Amino acid sequence: MHKLVLVRHGQSQWNLENRFTGWTDVPLSPLGVQEAQAGAKALMDAGLDFDLCHTSLLKRAVKTLDIILEAMDRMWLPVVKDWRLNERHYGALQGLNKAETAAKYGDAQVFEWRRSYDVRPPALDADDPRHPRFDRCYAALSPDQLPAVECLKDTVARVMPCWHEELAPAVRSGSRLLVAAHGNSLRALVKYLDGISDEAIAQLNIPTGVPLVYELDENLKPLTHYYLGDPDEIARQVQAVADQGKARA
Amino acid sequence: MHKLVLVRHGQSQWNLENRFTGWTDVPLSPLGVQEAQAGAKALMDAGLDFDLCHTSLLKRAVKTLDIILEAMDRMWLPVVKDWRLNERHYGALQGLNKAETAAKYGDAQVFEWRRSYDVRPPALDADDPRHPRFDRCYAALSPDQLPAVECLKDTVARVMPCWHEELAPAVRSGSRLLVAAHGNSLRALVKYLDGISDEAIAQLNIPTGVPLVYELDENLKPLTHYYLGDPDEIARQVQAVADQGKARA
Repeated sequence: MHKLVLVRHGQSQWNLENRFTGWTDVPLSPLGVQEAQAGAKALMDAGLDFDLCHTSLLKRAVKTLDIILEAMDRMWLPVVKDWRLNERHYGALQGLNKAETAAKYGDAQVFEWRRSYDVRPPALDADDPRHPRFDRCYAALSPDQLPAVECLKDTVARVMPCWHEELAPAVRSGSRLLVAAHGNSLRALVKYLDGISDEAIAQLNIPTGVPLVYELDENLKPLTHYYLGDPDEIARQVQAVADQGKARA
Repeated sequence: MHKLVLVRHGQSQWNLENRFTGWTDVPLSPLGVQEAQAGAKALMDAGLDFDLCHTSLLKRAVKTLDIILEAMDRMWLPVVKDWRLNERHYGALQGLNKAETAAKYGDAQVFEWRRSYDVRPPALDADDPRHPRFDRCYAALSPDQLPAVECLKDTVARVMPCWHEELAPAVRSGSRLLVAAHGNSLRALVKYLDGISDEAIAQLNIPTGVPLVYELDENLKPLTHYYLGDPDEIARQVQAVADQGKARA
């Protein structure tokens, strides 16, 4: 039996400001730092340990992982930073306030952009300075790998090769993996692991900083999964994520 | 022309307490955190940037690198953690106060242990709980790779394969490397790069947290090297390192 632990980064400065973030590289908020520390404590209380860590190129995930590794006295663990674990690219919505966007376009449109499986929000122009082709950290990628916007289906399409090429072989070989990533890159993984339909994934919300443990059989099929922490508090956090896209959040 | 930047971790808790540290995994002191931040500022003031980072498995070096990368907004850079960049293993001296050890054995003996090229201090017993074979982070290494004590010559012998197999090929291929490591693993590198004799290396002291820039030709021969920072302050820090092994430091 294998264990795989996923953790969504703690609250970022733009989560706090209720803005669409996507690939914008914003830091953790003070609460986000606390959430990462609480996640580390939950991992230690559960007696979990790791051999290998994967995260995205975005500082809110890297920092969450750094905080956890420091608290667990595991700063020596290897860490792989992979752009394919980045948050979903939110295109031209990046930087806009979610409630203001909902007030302007309506809750239904914003919910569709946030949670439909295959509807993309408006894309960034190729000349927009926010386009990832201007960011040195993506310089090694080919133009067709660089998104100007993504729907969740697009995010799934780039996360899955990371799973099949990197994460799954490591888990299969016995490594205990900790993956610190983002709401949508983790939803992509969870959708695949649990076989969630394109429709049902809309309703899945992953709270920030709460370790999500998967127990997998030898074929990496989930036997069970569970969050580490207080169930009432986790339910409250899940609802808070679901409420973010509403005009009166 | 290539640039390679070396930085010794900031002051650790045991530097502060003037104890032999070696492979003991002690954290940075508050001053050490400040030194790492000052090192980051010096790098930014000099307009330096990086493509790849290497560090040891010891948290004082990893944390120094983390602090620098966060300050430089380069948390996405790949980081390779390599045991071969660890500090020299100080054997049974690890944990002892340097001044007390000097008072007991004499300045000359302690200077010999600290600075002779090929005289080892007393080794750890194989059953000593401090022996690296009991530490999970070295579990992948074979017994003959795990030191119970090292002289600088031993440290050189394990650092050089890291240079030839990992660091030098990366520099040669055009990557701008930042190496965050330790007094003696960096002395090993500097000895090789500058062709310093076994005798003269005893007098070389590298200050904590001060970036050391090497400019290398296409064959990786040094054209020049220099510290980034205020020369008077750096001279003071070098002297402080040299004074640590004296009974009246």
